[in-house]
Amino acid sequence: MSKSPSLPASLKQLLIKGDELFLPGISVDCVIFGFHENSLKILLLDIADSNKWSVPGGFVLKNEDIDAAAYRVLKERTGLKDIFLQQFNVFGQPNRIEASAHKATFEQYGTKLSKDHWLLQRFVSAGYYALIDYTNFTVQNDSFNSLNSWIGIEHLSKLSFDHDHDSIVKKALESLRTQLAYLPIGKNLLPKKFTMPELQKLYETILNKPLDRRNFQRKMLSFGILNKLNETRKGGAHKAPYLYTFNDKKYQKALKDGLYGSW
Amino acid sequence: MSKSPSLPASLKQLLIKGDELFLPGISVDCVIFGFHENSLKILLLDIADSNKWSVPGGFVLKNEDIDAAAYRVLKERTGLKDIFLQQFNVFGQPNRIEASAHKATFEQYGTKLSKDHWLLQRFVSAGYYALIDYTNFTVQNDSFNSLNSWIGIEHLSKLSFDHDHDSIVKKALESLRTQLAYLPIGKNLLPKKFTMPELQKLYETILNKPLDRRNFQRKMLSFGILNKLNETRKGGAHKAPYLYTFNDKKYQKALKDGLYGSW
Repeated sequence: MSKSPSLPASLKQLLIKGDELFLPGISVDCVIFGFHENSLKILLLDIADSNKWSVPGGFVLKNEDIDAAAYRVLKERTGLKDIFLQQFNVFGQPNRIEASAHKATFEQYGTKLSKDHWLLQRFVSAGYYALIDYTNFTVQNDSFNSLNSWIGIEHLSKLSFDHDHDSIVKKALESLRTQLAYLPIGKNLLPKKFTMPELQKLYETILNKPLDRRNFQRKMLSFGILNKLNETRKGGAHKAPYLYTFNDKKYQKALKDGLYGSW
Repeated sequence: MSKSPSLPASLKQLLIKGDELFLPGISVDCVIFGFHENSLKILLLDIADSNKWSVPGGFVLKNEDIDAAAYRVLKERTGLKDIFLQQFNVFGQPNRIEASAHKATFEQYGTKLSKDHWLLQRFVSAGYYALIDYTNFTVQNDSFNSLNSWIGIEHLSKLSFDHDHDSIVKKALESLRTQLAYLPIGKNLLPKKFTMPELQKLYETILNKPLDRRNFQRKMLSFGILNKLNETRKGGAHKAPYLYTFNDKKYQKALKDGLYGSW
């Protein structure tokens, strides 16, 4: 029998002081989306190389705002601040007991959780999704010995997920698609300057269906959230396409009032 | 000194078995909207006649889905099933300690909560809003000796609220207004048949501003969610206005895809 690796400090803290530091029964889960080379990707982690994927999550400090806890988790994973973060659902099904996942995490270090340990109770989780600029950061592994990877959404069906993290990812993707119907998107997923075909590709990728080029452009321009630049994308065989950027003020207003304006 | 009234059974259960029956640190709060005589009303309660208003809420049973808990609370208050219920926000600020409210509730019965009682811990609350048919039910008082009242939103600023329930109501109203920009509304707030002016009045009331009659009608009809009936509202001095009903199938689709259709 091989000797178990020693328990990382962060897990040791959870084991001994978790119930003192954190709220009981509440966690946050973050679905982090990035867009790269025409693929919508999600940052997933394979906790301790177990081949069971999950989304980054964490607990809420006893004196911490729950939104702040989600930001903290994101910052720990990505090093990024100022990202678009949206609370999208509370996962409170009684059967989503995370106990088995917590158990497994500790067992690989040869540590058994006591039967009444707070990590073995029922957790209700607040789900957040984040849109980040893929090119703007490097994936960091965390102190729990987990592998962080960007996985294209086209590969999700092939993965094996930890407890109910498949439904968390599915619901986040659904919320993102719904958001397309009435809110602007793209600001955090695309570089500052982009072409209309690049924006269309983002929509097509999220919706997983092709869109008509002319209708897309007409609809997109009608929202008034784009600034057309006097600049084209150089290189490429075709006529160089114009570059656009988002009009910050109008983008923010549309995020608040909806793309079609308020009544 | 007058003798305190005796503790109602429901409170007694909370006092003695609360930590055994319910999840720690999680509650649900329900903002119930109704529309009557051109006024948008919220069902509020004055717990034990304290002159501090709050929205109906409750705890989550150890083996209960959190959405189911919100439905249960609503059913207890209104007797209604099948109502439109929407999770809109998680209230997880560390300073929203409900301890003082819980303390006060018990103190009026001469009961002091022990310092480490589970009712005195920090609670994170999932906020839901519900739209119900005002004419379809009678307000029921509950076993906590609370007065349930419909309060028109125009009177909210004059009320004194329990801990952070003013911000819960405010956020629910904000979410409802945002919803108007991209989702249909009215199905649960209006009677089955209604006139265009009645529908417009609902929008004007929620938005708290007058809308142009022609623009409203044109926009509303363009969504394709209404069926015009071959029937008019009788009585009244003016030309009798036509009655409409919602097209159920298209209404449900618009609730899912947004009023302006999907991409």
